[in-house]
Amino acid sequence: MLGEFELISKYFSRPVRRAVLGGGDDCALLAPDPGMQLAVSTDMLVEGRHFLSTVAPDRLGHKALAVNLSDLAACGAEPLAFTLALALPRADGGFLSAFARGLYALAERAGIELVGGDTTAGPLTVSITAIGQVPAGQALLRSGARPGHDIWVSGQLGDARLALEVFRGRALLPGSAFDDVRRAMELPEPRLALGTALRGLATAAIDLSDGLAGDLGHVMRASGVGATIEVDRLPRSTVLGLQPADLQYECLLAGGDDYELLFTAPPSRRAAVEDAGRRAQVAVTRIGSVDDSDTLRFLGPDGRPLAHAFAGFDHFK
Amino acid sequence: MLGEFELISKYFSRPVRRAVLGGGDDCALLAPDPGMQLAVSTDMLVEGRHFLSTVAPDRLGHKALAVNLSDLAACGAEPLAFTLALALPRADGGFLSAFARGLYALAERAGIELVGGDTTAGPLTVSITAIGQVPAGQALLRSGARPGHDIWVSGQLGDARLALEVFRGRALLPGSAFDDVRRAMELPEPRLALGTALRGLATAAIDLSDGLAGDLGHVMRASGVGATIEVDRLPRSTVLGLQPADLQYECLLAGGDDYELLFTAPPSRRAAVEDAGRRAQVAVTRIGSVDDSDTLRFLGPDGRPLAHAFAGFDHFK
Repeated sequence: MLGEFELISKYFSRPVRRAVLGGGDDCALLAPDPGMQLAVSTDMLVEGRHFLSTVAPDRLGHKALAVNLSDLAACGAEPLAFTLALALPRADGGFLSAFARGLYALAERAGIELVGGDTTAGPLTVSITAIGQVPAGQALLRSGARPGHDIWVSGQLGDARLALEVFRGRALLPGSAFDDVRRAMELPEPRLALGTALRGLATAAIDLSDGLAGDLGHVMRASGVGATIEVDRLPRSTVLGLQPADLQYECLLAGGDDYELLFTAPPSRRAAVEDAGRRAQVAVTRIGSVDDSDTLRFLGPDGRPLAHAFAGFDHFK
Repeated sequence: MLGEFELISKYFSRPVRRAVLGGGDDCALLAPDPGMQLAVSTDMLVEGRHFLSTVAPDRLGHKALAVNLSDLAACGAEPLAFTLALALPRADGGFLSAFARGLYALAERAGIELVGGDTTAGPLTVSITAIGQVPAGQALLRSGARPGHDIWVSGQLGDARLALEVFRGRALLPGSAFDDVRRAMELPEPRLALGTALRGLATAAIDLSDGLAGDLGHVMRASGVGATIEVDRLPRSTVLGLQPADLQYECLLAGGDDYELLFTAPPSRRAAVEDAGRRAQVAVTRIGSVDDSDTLRFLGPDGRPLAHAFAGFDHFK
C-alpha cells in the first residue's frame, strides 16, 4: 500500500513554472505580479453531498478544481495557483491516477498550478483553495448592480439539476440525452475568459452554484436592489426544453451546479457584452433587469409572475 | 435548524481589517505588501485521524488553525489571511460557537484574518489554507542544511504523543499530568515569532508534525546531508522524562503533533539563535549536528547509536 509521501510524489508532484516554490516544503511560495490583488476561493466537495459515488474519478478531479475556478471567473481573476486537501478511504492507485489526470488536464488548460496540499485517510472529501490575481480595483463584485441594468447569464442553465433528477428517478432520459446532462453536472466549464473580458464592463457578477434564484438573491442583497427575470429567456438545452414546465422551472431557477456566470451591465453596454461573449467563445443571454424593488420576480410566458417560490440550494436544509 | 448562509453569518463573519475584501463575495481580495512573496499552506483535519471525538470544540478550532500557522512559522512568514472549509454532520450551535471562539482567539493573537471558505454537511472535517507573506528571497526552506551546522529545536517534544498513548491505554498518568500533556496535544502553539526571528539565521527549517525522525528526514533529503542527534539533549517535560526509556524515545523521535520548529544554523551563530529564542520567548535547544553521511543516527546516553528505527507518522500506514 502506498504511503502518504509516496502518494504525493507519485500523483501530485508535477513541476511548477510560475510559482517561486511548489510542493515539498512547509509552504509554497508565490510572487504575484506588481499592482495585482489576490483573489482567493475555497470549496469543499463531500461524497454523497456534492458528487455521487458513481462519478468517474477523472471527472471528480476536474469538477473539484472547476468549482473553484468558477469563483475566480466570477471575480474577473486570472488563475495563479491552488492547493489540494484530499481525504481518501484508502490510497487506491487507480482512483488517484484518474483523479490526478482530470485535475491536471483542467489545471493546464486554465494556466493554474498545484503548489501544495495535504492528503490523509478519511471519508472521501476534496477541498481546494484557488488563488488568482486581478488588477487592483478591477475585481468583479456582487455589489455594483443598479436599477435599470440588464441581467445576463453565460451558457445554458439547468442541465446539471436535470441529471440529478434522473439519478433520483424523477425524470427519465434516453441514453445520449442522459450522457449530455450528466456531462453538464460532472464536467462544468469555468468561464474564466468571460470573467476577465467583463472587467470594467459588468457592474456585478456571481457564479451560479446554488441555483439562479438563490445566487441572484446574493447580488440583490449586496447591491440593495430588486430584479425581474423573464423565464422564457433563460437559455436551456433542447433536452431540458422538452421536460414538463414545473421541472424546467425548478432546474432553471433552483438548480445549482450550473457554474455559469450571472452578471449585470448597463443597457448602453449591450454590444460590448456580446463582444466579450464572442471573444470568450461562450453564449451570453440577457434574461431580465435590475429594479429598485426589494423583490425577485419571475415572469412566465404570459408576462405574469410565477406563483411558485424557488429557494437556492442549502447544504444544511 | 440553521441554514448554510445563516451559519456563516452567525459564526464566521467578523469584519476584516487588512484584507481588501473578506467573506461574502465569490472570492476574498488580498493586497500583499510590495516586495513580499506569499507563503501558502493547507492542512486537513479529519475526526478520528487528527483529533479524537473527545476534543473540546474550542480546542479543535485552535488546533485546526495552529497546524497551518506552524507551517507559516517554519517558512519565516508573517500571517495574513486564511480560508476555512468545514464539513459538519449537522449545524450544531453549541459546537459552532465554541469552535469559532477557539479559532478566532488564536487568529487575533496571530494577526491573521478569516477571509472566506465553505461549509457543508458531511463527516466532521476541517480544512484550512493559510496565506502569509515573507520578504522575497528570505523564506526559510528545508534545503539549506550543510555539514557542520547545528541542529536545534524549539520548546519541548513528545508530550502530544504521550497524551495519545494515554488515550490508547498504553500509558497511565495522574490527572494534572494528563491535563498538561493533553493540552500539548490539543493546544499547540505555533512558533511564529521564532520563525520570523530566524530569517537570515537558520539555514533550513521545518515544523515537527510527523515526528522528529520523519521530519528531519525531509530536511536531510532536501539538503542532501546526514545528521546525528544526541537523544539525551532532546527537550522534554518532567512528565515525559519519568516514562520508561522506550516510550520516551518513541514520543520524542516518532511522536508527531509537536508543532515545534526544527532548524539548522552554523555554529558561529549560536549566540544569535539563542537571542532569537529569547526575543520570541521560546526555549531553543541544540540537539545534534548535520554531517555528510547519508544516514540519520540517534546517539543514546552512552554515546552509542540506538538500535531501533523510528519512522515518521504516515496517515496511510
